[in-house]
Amino acid sequence: MPRSHAHLARLFVEPDLAAGGNLTLGKDQSLYLAAVLRKGVGDEVVLFNGRDGAWLCRLTGDSKKSVTLEIIEQIAPQTPKSDFWYGFAPLKSERLDYVVQKAVEMGVGTIQPVMTQFTQVHRLKPDRLSANAVEAAEQCEVLNVPEIAAEISLDRLLADWPETHGTRTLLFADEGEASSSPVAALERLAGQSIGLLIGPEGGFSDAEREKLHAQPFVIPISLGPRILRADTAAVAAMALIQAIIGDWR
Amino acid sequence: MPRSHAHLARLFVEPDLAAGGNLTLGKDQSLYLAAVLRKGVGDEVVLFNGRDGAWLCRLTGDSKKSVTLEIIEQIAPQTPKSDFWYGFAPLKSERLDYVVQKAVEMGVGTIQPVMTQFTQVHRLKPDRLSANAVEAAEQCEVLNVPEIAAEISLDRLLADWPETHGTRTLLFADEGEASSSPVAALERLAGQSIGLLIGPEGGFSDAEREKLHAQPFVIPISLGPRILRADTAAVAAMALIQAIIGDWR
Repeated sequence: MPRSHAHLARLFVEPDLAAGGNLTLGKDQSLYLAAVLRKGVGDEVVLFNGRDGAWLCRLTGDSKKSVTLEIIEQIAPQTPKSDFWYGFAPLKSERLDYVVQKAVEMGVGTIQPVMTQFTQVHRLKPDRLSANAVEAAEQCEVLNVPEIAAEISLDRLLADWPETHGTRTLLFADEGEASSSPVAALERLAGQSIGLLIGPEGGFSDAEREKLHAQPFVIPISLGPRILRADTAAVAAMALIQAIIGDWR
Repeated sequence: MPRSHAHLARLFVEPDLAAGGNLTLGKDQSLYLAAVLRKGVGDEVVLFNGRDGAWLCRLTGDSKKSVTLEIIEQIAPQTPKSDFWYGFAPLKSERLDYVVQKAVEMGVGTIQPVMTQFTQVHRLKPDRLSANAVEAAEQCEVLNVPEIAAEISLDRLLADWPETHGTRTLLFADEGEASSSPVAALERLAGQSIGLLIGPEGGFSDAEREKLHAQPFVIPISLGPRILRADTAAVAAMALIQAIIGDWR
């Protein structure tokens, strides 16, 4: 991304984006651009839709109810959808927003809430998760917005895994593992489809750990000698996965 | 740590800890144990001081002004002080607390605020940083509380580095680096003394980046193709460093 576009506001939109096109934003985004960000006719913003890359656009109308824009030029090509699946036991409100945000920053492709025995939150608002994912993509110049899959119980996730995920390997951070480095285990998975499961703050129950260990597609990994909070463990594991066998190379 | 102690409250104290000893807590910690956590005579807690490991202790007096305890037995040996140095451009309040907390979870030995051109915060409260570090150690069962070094300007840090840090290598996350995996660069540093510098949300200025690149002890690393927030970058880099050449093995 050329430096000159780095400070422009970015918005995720639905319509196709192509040179010479025009579009009209809905009420919420119009209010946001015109009233909150105080953009006026002639100001530039960047739009993306998860399909066509990032586009430099210019306001042609700045009504707070109905901003219109002309599409000027593509400034970044579309990045491919990430194959990286991430399941996590939901945390409470702010921490939950944070978890989704970090997953977007780390290039996750699918985010799925997984209900476990010690999960503290039982009623998720899918719209909120999606809104957080979109906002995180906008703020971090990520051009793919992860899909938010419907919440699922751990039992169902594991039972349905081969049918739903095929040959995808499921990694989970196992506090019961002796402290070790997961580097070698990850290197052996180069080129494979990967999933990462992060448990709740209380960890997995003994029964859950046994069940996870019993699945042929599951590989437990250690995240070192210290106890990590769920959100720390998530970022740490994602960094290792992406750096060693993911899209950092 | 045996599972049975996992849910006991932990407190960082100053005095030596040895079997058969007794100690009296000050006002703040007495109030915390007796009034907030409602511990009473006979209840167990875990105490640590960063020198003697973790000790199972039992309340012998539960006055809110002056809790007394008998020291029973050591339940974990002292972990060695970490050599891992971490410098970061301070963020605002909550994010700052979070950064210190994550550094403790990730086994950092020294935490130093570094003032850069785009640093948003200019007046740090050292006591607050120390209190956060202690609290993080208590919550995450970490037995070493990182030292909080005095804030320093980036210029002074780099000028004084050889004299202050000897042969320590300084890694910094360089947004200007082409996206790559830092795994190979880190593997080459096995056995060496390491420092990690994370810049502010606005990144380093061009002049600062040039200066960093010019230092013989500095190695720039990439943290992948996406923009990471400062706190995400910190955890990601720490995980890679600890897993590849640190104390995860």
